[in-house]
Amino acid sequence: MTSVSIIGAGNMGTAIAAIAATGGATVQLLAQDAEKTAAAAANAGSTVVSGAAGDVLTGDIVVLALPYPAVAGVLAQYAGQLDGKIVVDITNPLDFATFDSLVVPADGSAAQVIAETVPGARVLKAFNTTFAATLATGSVGGAVPTTVLVAGDDASAKEALIAVITAGGVAAIDAGALKRARELEALGFLQLTLAAGGAINWTGGFALVK
Amino acid sequence: MTSVSIIGAGNMGTAIAAIAATGGATVQLLAQDAEKTAAAAANAGSTVVSGAAGDVLTGDIVVLALPYPAVAGVLAQYAGQLDGKIVVDITNPLDFATFDSLVVPADGSAAQVIAETVPGARVLKAFNTTFAATLATGSVGGAVPTTVLVAGDDASAKEALIAVITAGGVAAIDAGALKRARELEALGFLQLTLAAGGAINWTGGFALVK
Repeated sequence: MTSVSIIGAGNMGTAIAAIAATGGATVQLLAQDAEKTAAAAANAGSTVVSGAAGDVLTGDIVVLALPYPAVAGVLAQYAGQLDGKIVVDITNPLDFATFDSLVVPADGSAAQVIAETVPGARVLKAFNTTFAATLATGSVGGAVPTTVLVAGDDASAKEALIAVITAGGVAAIDAGALKRARELEALGFLQLTLAAGGAINWTGGFALVK
Repeated sequence: MTSVSIIGAGNMGTAIAAIAATGGATVQLLAQDAEKTAAAAANAGSTVVSGAAGDVLTGDIVVLALPYPAVAGVLAQYAGQLDGKIVVDITNPLDFATFDSLVVPADGSAAQVIAETVPGARVLKAFNTTFAATLATGSVGGAVPTTVLVAGDDASAKEALIAVITAGGVAAIDAGALKRARELEALGFLQLTLAAGGAINWTGGFALVK
């Protein structure tokens, strides 16, 4: 059975935990605040196990459901434990002071920075183009089923994550190599600026229509 | 009345001409092949006037409905005639040999390159995230009304273009400063790779849902 560890129990981590649990995966949800994490785990599903950031990871798939500035610390905390694991970066690495640029190299991405930091891990980019509400409801603005875009260089890692998501009732597609994380992050950035500016709601966004 | 000159009579130029004509704008459609251009103009609407690339521009809004490699030549051809005009860049500046990167600076965009080339023009980015079929039908995959994303630094220029598009029955929104063309081009690039790879159809794509 697929096992998933999710680090971060905010709206995104909780929504991803719920999808994985619905699909039958073994889910571990870890975050700093034990009480809040237990509540989030209960919300995500009765089988979701909660714990503290720093606990040994039980999942083969590790989702970093964290804001980008928190990622480096968690990667350092788990140094050596991520080799061979599928590590999923969901971040939108905005400069939140200006909301006008990204803090990663313009020709790269947060996902590629993470892949360089943990070269033994199988790094994927996913979930950064889908607002938490669209993951929780399975629908973008009530109009189109939500599709998670997954990019990465390891085909079997992508297949494993896509299987977890689709088993949980949400569509997911292969969006190409890890290099495409640059474009996924640009899309996530644009979507955030539109929502922050009121042009779209946090329940909407860019829906992929086949 | 608003006047629009469109240079390029392919699927995109023809679809944009039809929207502008439907909205009541005076439309001039220019391209190399006179016979093809006349046929495209007739398809776009009975009031659309066709002509040859190089003809004097009658529009206050000039849409460069060209592949990116053709833009520099047309800008040179119209040197001095574009000052004060609203110039609309619709390109997705892909490296079509590899389909794996863009040919413009990673921290910039084709639109910003064009703005530097014609500093007297009021340059906008638009239409690069909407496939021609979604402009022609007004719908992304039959599921969601098409929305044109418009970026630029000149607020009144954006308002004028958005008014032309919405008068033609298609939604359009302000997507921010010209700097956001980087993200619009990343979105257009990603969408092209998904369509070229068969993950989505050329009638679909990323639909903006409020």
